[in-house]
Amino acid sequence: MQIEVTRGGRVESRHAIAFAVSDARGGLLLSGGDVEAAIFPRSAVKVIQALPLVESGAADRFGLDDEALALACASHNGEAAHAAVAARTLSRLGLDAAALECGAHWPSLPEAARGLACEAPGRPSALHNNCSGKHSGFLCLACGLDVAPRGYIRPEHAVQRAVKSALEAVAGVTLPEGSHGIDGCSIPTYALPLAALAQGFARLGTGEGLSAGHAAAAARLRAAVAAHPFMVAGTGRFDTAVMTALGARAFTKVGAEGVFCAILPEQGLGIALKCADGATRAAEVAMAALLARLLPDLPEEVSTLAAPVMRNWNGIEVGRMRAVF
Amino acid sequence: MQIEVTRGGRVESRHAIAFAVSDARGGLLLSGGDVEAAIFPRSAVKVIQALPLVESGAADRFGLDDEALALACASHNGEAAHAAVAARTLSRLGLDAAALECGAHWPSLPEAARGLACEAPGRPSALHNNCSGKHSGFLCLACGLDVAPRGYIRPEHAVQRAVKSALEAVAGVTLPEGSHGIDGCSIPTYALPLAALAQGFARLGTGEGLSAGHAAAAARLRAAVAAHPFMVAGTGRFDTAVMTALGARAFTKVGAEGVFCAILPEQGLGIALKCADGATRAAEVAMAALLARLLPDLPEEVSTLAAPVMRNWNGIEVGRMRAVF
Repeated sequence: MQIEVTRGGRVESRHAIAFAVSDARGGLLLSGGDVEAAIFPRSAVKVIQALPLVESGAADRFGLDDEALALACASHNGEAAHAAVAARTLSRLGLDAAALECGAHWPSLPEAARGLACEAPGRPSALHNNCSGKHSGFLCLACGLDVAPRGYIRPEHAVQRAVKSALEAVAGVTLPEGSHGIDGCSIPTYALPLAALAQGFARLGTGEGLSAGHAAAAARLRAAVAAHPFMVAGTGRFDTAVMTALGARAFTKVGAEGVFCAILPEQGLGIALKCADGATRAAEVAMAALLARLLPDLPEEVSTLAAPVMRNWNGIEVGRMRAVF
Repeated sequence: MQIEVTRGGRVESRHAIAFAVSDARGGLLLSGGDVEAAIFPRSAVKVIQALPLVESGAADRFGLDDEALALACASHNGEAAHAAVAARTLSRLGLDAAALECGAHWPSLPEAARGLACEAPGRPSALHNNCSGKHSGFLCLACGLDVAPRGYIRPEHAVQRAVKSALEAVAGVTLPEGSHGIDGCSIPTYALPLAALAQGFARLGTGEGLSAGHAAAAARLRAAVAAHPFMVAGTGRFDTAVMTALGARAFTKVGAEGVFCAILPEQGLGIALKCADGATRAAEVAMAALLARLLPDLPEEVSTLAAPVMRNWNGIEVGRMRAVF
């Protein structure tokens, strides 16, 4: 698939997309590009990284609610509501933002960053890191496992070992020790093929091929995100818009460098795609185009995302993006 | 050329670059990709768009200084100093920000946007638009031509006709009427081949093939930018870093959607490149890699831009970018 970016009736830029749409048994319904080449899934697999939090019983032991579980699957905007839910999870553990090892950055939503700048102390904390919900979940898992939380971002820590095992089990792959890269939030990220990722996401929807514990945890996380789609991303974001419109019919999750994964539970399908050049704008259009192919009765709020209009600072239409299969 | 983005020893993303390095007679010293396909040069040709401002005598008539001329060639960060110089140009014309037709947007430098948000009135004006210097120059040209400024962004206005003529003369092309797209700042942008662009930029450095008026105007604009490299971009920006380090040895200018152009006056060469997917990060690495090939005794501040290290929020190195010819 290619995503074309047009201006003045001319294609100005092009993005190449590799994608796999799979059922839970690994049958490919649709695919394009090299789906056996390993890619770093980055934040697109946060829902898988959150499975041990639920399956281990840690989430229940510390009373995490659905907002906290949705935030554990999130790459959020750093809006006040996101930071508040992360802080609430930490307080249930007797911890605070100092325990987070993801680093601090300004909210990715510019309005939220500007708002934060104008309030004391005028700077962000790790609570505003887009991964703060996932990291709060990691800390909860460490507490649930009764291991020292410190260093929970390292590959050899019990938390990251559990996360790696979940990814291996769901995607049906073996991830060699030491084969990882380091993610933006400092945890390891393991490369695996799009086909395996898509099959894993199909399993998250149907439970087929998963342990009972993983299947139940996946269903609970999907329900939490469907109930709180704002928590998984935020104002103006693709994932929030899609899941607000579709509810439990689809779970979608962006990852850095042009990765996108999705679960279509009713169809029993999983989707994994990667834009070769890492562009999020193209990965979003590709995901919307696949949803438009696979889901009946798609609401307009979602179908328009497959052919977005680009406007300039005066609101004049200057171009469009479109998917070409 | 390809730009590879690595993580954990693996290539995570890739960008395809088409590029042309030409002398003033159109002889290609180096090239890659399709250099005869027409591309929108976007803001990379602001220095050409500023030629009529100088050549017509308008800049002198209204007393524009070198800072104002450098800002006319800029895609600036919207920092306070940039907005102040644009306002100064407008005041010399008896105009203010209301005359600018580029639209308002928040400063592209996040620190500048956050600072502006915390001051009354807490919102940006058209002075903060990255094109405000160019548009102030357009207004100066309109005043110099003794035509009504209003509508100066339209293709049929005397200002845009002069700008189009300058582009045709410098690049040695004919741009058909109505063949344009609309740029981010609402003026027309005309597509032309990378080879012609590169030749045009070589001419801007040597004067060969240009009218005496264009040659003198190009030399003056180059000197103004070399004296005030902050004005052409700003804090943390590639063009400012390169020209601060190299002075008059190189003029570089980014454009939206992965375009980059440069003048190497001492070598008599021009460079034009386009990243196929529109990524600025890749266009910057490609430009730095070409500067490293073409310029002797390159300072480290520039050579490091050809192989930048990527760090995460904790400052850990997670990957690199590199050019592969």
